[in-house]
Amino acid sequence: MTRKSKAMYLTSYPAGLPSGDNFAVREVEVPAPGAGELLLRTVWMSVDPYMRGRMRPDVKSYIPPFSLEEPLDGGAVSQVIESNAEGFEPGDYVVGFSGGWKEYHTSPAEGMTKVDPSIAPLSAYLGVLGMPGMTAWSGLTQIINPKEGETLFVSGAAGAVGSLVCQLGKARGMRVIGSAGSDEKCAWLESEGGCDVAINYKNYPSSGELTKALAEAAPKGVDGYFENVGGDHLEAALNVIAFGGRMALCGMIALYNNTELAPGPGNLVNMIGRGVMAQGFIVSNYMHLTPQFIAEVGPLVASGQVKFRETTYDGLDKAGDAFVGLFHGENFGKAVIRVGPDAL
Amino acid sequence: MTRKSKAMYLTSYPAGLPSGDNFAVREVEVPAPGAGELLLRTVWMSVDPYMRGRMRPDVKSYIPPFSLEEPLDGGAVSQVIESNAEGFEPGDYVVGFSGGWKEYHTSPAEGMTKVDPSIAPLSAYLGVLGMPGMTAWSGLTQIINPKEGETLFVSGAAGAVGSLVCQLGKARGMRVIGSAGSDEKCAWLESEGGCDVAINYKNYPSSGELTKALAEAAPKGVDGYFENVGGDHLEAALNVIAFGGRMALCGMIALYNNTELAPGPGNLVNMIGRGVMAQGFIVSNYMHLTPQFIAEVGPLVASGQVKFRETTYDGLDKAGDAFVGLFHGENFGKAVIRVGPDAL
Repeated sequence: MTRKSKAMYLTSYPAGLPSGDNFAVREVEVPAPGAGELLLRTVWMSVDPYMRGRMRPDVKSYIPPFSLEEPLDGGAVSQVIESNAEGFEPGDYVVGFSGGWKEYHTSPAEGMTKVDPSIAPLSAYLGVLGMPGMTAWSGLTQIINPKEGETLFVSGAAGAVGSLVCQLGKARGMRVIGSAGSDEKCAWLESEGGCDVAINYKNYPSSGELTKALAEAAPKGVDGYFENVGGDHLEAALNVIAFGGRMALCGMIALYNNTELAPGPGNLVNMIGRGVMAQGFIVSNYMHLTPQFIAEVGPLVASGQVKFRETTYDGLDKAGDAFVGLFHGENFGKAVIRVGPDAL
Repeated sequence: MTRKSKAMYLTSYPAGLPSGDNFAVREVEVPAPGAGELLLRTVWMSVDPYMRGRMRPDVKSYIPPFSLEEPLDGGAVSQVIESNAEGFEPGDYVVGFSGGWKEYHTSPAEGMTKVDPSIAPLSAYLGVLGMPGMTAWSGLTQIINPKEGETLFVSGAAGAVGSLVCQLGKARGMRVIGSAGSDEKCAWLESEGGCDVAINYKNYPSSGELTKALAEAAPKGVDGYFENVGGDHLEAALNVIAFGGRMALCGMIALYNNTELAPGPGNLVNMIGRGVMAQGFIVSNYMHLTPQFIAEVGPLVASGQVKFRETTYDGLDKAGDAFVGLFHGENFGKAVIRVGPDAL
């Protein structure tokens, strides 16, 4: 039986900042699941900054650009409605990186992972226990490789990735400095989010001013820098980076909507004299370590030791707004879209 | 007995490009060697780009700035005149990173290494078998970590460091692309210097043009980039860097004489999607591997398999000119200054 579903489309490639006009909901047909496939009903849908990179049709990247002819694609937590795959029963909840941005979708069971709603709310499997959480854990443990007593700087610290980096860094005995774009976010970072000092970067609107704030917060320099933002943040971090510093380059959200290349930091030469390493990465580079990540972070989330924030939007129709919000600093923690009625 | 010696001084800190006016020869007293010390007569003296960094009195680096009140300091090959240290006899030749830029100097024997003129000409211990050679070997083997069939790009390929990187990369089965600033240098790189393709960067005066030339020479992208130059070279390398690429950041000579920070590459974000690693380094980070370097490169130099070029200047008085020449692309291979009559 073929089923109808609402699906979110990209109607045009954004030039600069995306807006709601770049998105539209259409109706699609959802084929019945074949052998090894599942019919899924979306419960929670994910919006993530990396998707902006797929909205540039002319750029070669690790993942192809979105088509205007097909529904958008992204991560989602879904419930199994029909299963033609061993190990999956109707009623099970699953998470996958692909297939979302529809109310119903058919998907190979391969690539879908069953999740347990008793450990954490379902939406957490898109955030702290999902791809952003795994990104945070990988960059911190596999690249920055923290040592007790070292100083960590995290840009975009109130985001889905940054907020876990801060807390895991703190748990490893680091002095943690985070930057975020509002006093509310900074207050949360200092009270619950693992930061010794949170810097509202909007008060320091140049790399020179940000450098001064950072140098004051990190008198011994920054040993590890977790990069989510780029621009002034990277230049400031390179000004205060310590000898032997490590930088995990995860994202540069400040640049994603540029229509032309903005100049980069003028002080990369500091990396030479100070013996600094920078490693760019995407989470799939470390996917084989997922069991290690779950073993460490799962219990911390279940026990409430790790805190996380979410900004929720209601309904598939709001996916465009949620995505646009990523680039206006409107979202606090992970941005998720409630699609199913069981999205609690 | 105290001895008189000519010594080269920095008379003023250069603003921008250094010139001969920044240097002057003065007479100094050379104390008699105490216990554990040597009286040394300089034979060959070294000029190296890193010294420019020590001519900025206001910049904190891994090594303090030069004083205007004391002779300049740099590497040299010297002959022992008097020895108060076990294991050193008058007539021995030694190399050290410090103490040069005088005709005679007294130095602790610690830090001086005896060298064998029968393996290679004495000046080679300042170049291919000395600090630049060790720099080349360390960056290539410890950071880029070559694999057969990969592509290597080396900027400043005709320099003391770059020319060895190219040859060692070629010997490890890499496709090697080098850049240099004259057709003569490029011809040598392709005939003797280990390059499959040498690019005269002066024909490509923008990062866009350099990118095109590089993409043509490296159709599968660049797996390893050895950075000596910075500026357009780094931006071009980041445009063609391959997935999993490694960049050894050794120097950025294009920037050393800037009086203000020049903007950096606008495409650092490529490091993220392509999983690229960049490691800044100075040779002293790898000093413990010197025996491994000598064991590999010594025989290659002795047998003539590794080729090297030198640009020689005559007399201590010419040290300023030699140094200034580094920033005008005037030197081909290692720049050395003949100080002693036995500098053959």
